[in-house]
Amino acid sequence: MTHTPATTDGMPDDRQQDIEAEVTRQVLRSFADCTDPRLRQVLQSLVQHLHAFVRDVRLTEKEWDLGIDFLTRTGHITDDRRQEFILLSDVLGVSMQTVAVNNEAYGRATEATVFGPFFVEDSPEIEPGGDMSFGARGEPCWVEGTVTDSAGDPVPGARVEVWEADEDGFYDTQYDDDRTAARAHLFTDADGRYRFWGLTPTPYAIPHDGPVGQLLAATGRSPMRASHLHFMVSAPALRTLVTHIFVRGDELLDSDAVFGVKESLVKEFHTQGRGSPTPDGRDLTDRVWSRVRFDIVLAPDGT
Amino acid sequence: MTHTPATTDGMPDDRQQDIEAEVTRQVLRSFADCTDPRLRQVLQSLVQHLHAFVRDVRLTEKEWDLGIDFLTRTGHITDDRRQEFILLSDVLGVSMQTVAVNNEAYGRATEATVFGPFFVEDSPEIEPGGDMSFGARGEPCWVEGTVTDSAGDPVPGARVEVWEADEDGFYDTQYDDDRTAARAHLFTDADGRYRFWGLTPTPYAIPHDGPVGQLLAATGRSPMRASHLHFMVSAPALRTLVTHIFVRGDELLDSDAVFGVKESLVKEFHTQGRGSPTPDGRDLTDRVWSRVRFDIVLAPDGT
Ligand SMILES: [Fe+2]
Ligand SMILES: [Fe+2]
Repeated sequence: MTHTPATTDGMPDDRQQDIEAEVTRQVLRSFADCTDPRLRQVLQSLVQHLHAFVRDVRLTEKEWDLGIDFLTRTGHITDDRRQEFILLSDVLGVSMQTVAVNNEAYGRATEATVFGPFFVEDSPEIEPGGDMSFGARGEPCWVEGTVTDSAGDPVPGARVEVWEADEDGFYDTQYDDDRTAARAHLFTDADGRYRFWGLTPTPYAIPHDGPVGQLLAATGRSPMRASHLHFMVSAPALRTLVTHIFVRGDELLDSDAVFGVKESLVKEFHTQGRGSPTPDGRDLTDRVWSRVRFDIVLAPDGT
Repeated sequence: MTHTPATTDGMPDDRQQDIEAEVTRQVLRSFADCTDPRLRQVLQSLVQHLHAFVRDVRLTEKEWDLGIDFLTRTGHITDDRRQEFILLSDVLGVSMQTVAVNNEAYGRATEATVFGPFFVEDSPEIEPGGDMSFGARGEPCWVEGTVTDSAGDPVPGARVEVWEADEDGFYDTQYDDDRTAARAHLFTDADGRYRFWGLTPTPYAIPHDGPVGQLLAATGRSPMRASHLHFMVSAPALRTLVTHIFVRGDELLDSDAVFGVKESLVKEFHTQGRGSPTPDGRDLTDRVWSRVRFDIVLAPDGT
């Protein structure tokens, strides 16, 4: 039983291509009895694309080993406070590709961006005009805007979740002391308006002491994210929006580690000098602060 | 800013396709500074295939969530004794596709198959003709053969690692008592021959109480593997061979959960009645036993 080796252009010969294609066919057939058509579709597509990847790069057994080890370490560093698989999806742009696919039908609505690994359920509620920083360090920032539906009608009682890093570049969950800070939720008023005190966003590095950080380092990529403030906005019968706002002028807008920046989400943060009167009379004597406006449009649910 | 919705055939329109393609281009560009050309190639290909998967199935955000959760649970169940990521790679046929790609140049050599999740380093050594079962339950099986190179010359001193499940369908590592059983290594003699007592292979289910088992159940797939005995054979200057032998006549040969069966690896296990004389005079009074021959050809290293 002799075998013709790979053709001289590095492509596998016909017999080898048949052998490899047959492996894929066998796996696709194994899903024939799956009674959930969507699950079958997703898994068969995943199999085809993963197999094509293995064939295209002629993945070596040692590289397969490294892949298994990488995923194992990614799993082991992930816990209730750290989500390394989301980071991995983010830095490979899989998260933004998913966001792009799902944004398709929402032309008039505010654009979505990556969810990121730092959202926490059950954030504290603040009153309109309240302070979501809860002592996190940073320059105070007054954030205000409206929530409307795509017909332009205000949405009263919409839930607005906000979360962000402190000026040292860390979310509360990255500290060891179980603090809750720089995250909260509030509700829009009868006119669909919201307003709160947060922090002027500053750039930060995504956690890079784990497998994802090693991947970025090995490929010469920066772990820095453009400065941003996260929003998740929900209301009955409207599509939940997961997004951020970014800071106009930030040098990192073009090199965000997770590809999350969209022009429509870049906002002017207006710096206010020391002693400027605050919108709600808050005393910020001798401090610089900023203000930003972010009007949010929610698409109908289920579009 | 109006937006044309998806075209009526369900395909995204041109503008949407551009938006999605631009996400992929951005991610590919982010690897431009990677100084390791192979790493860049592998990651850029992975990104292209993963993004194409997301686009092709129009992955929903909820499905992305489920994927992150699935990988997280796969990571958390993986430990020193259980490798759920290898199982996942195996049941998706990614392992066999990798084996197929790497078998390309080894026409005359014995075929490889999946490594599986149950190999353990530092197995006990046995003498030629020794018993690798170490008390594991099952029908005794005399296994013998030669190791030669692809020129047909015997390979003395080749290391032959063997491991298998017991007749209850479990590997030693699946018990809680730290036993070492049904695994060993030995070396070929001056004529390149090996022989040992093992167990006649019996079918078993891959571990299916975790995420991979849920995936199989949800898709109507069986977790059963065709009966087999694992081999890993290595010698200086020759390619390490990872393979199994399967049992001729086993009903599961056509539905192996990990797609590992190859015709050239299916062997005749000859059942020997009670009282048949054993090759080495071992006393197996009143027991049925079997014997099998497996001649192994190793390819040159680095081909
Ligand atoms: Fe963030
Ligand atoms: Fe096995």
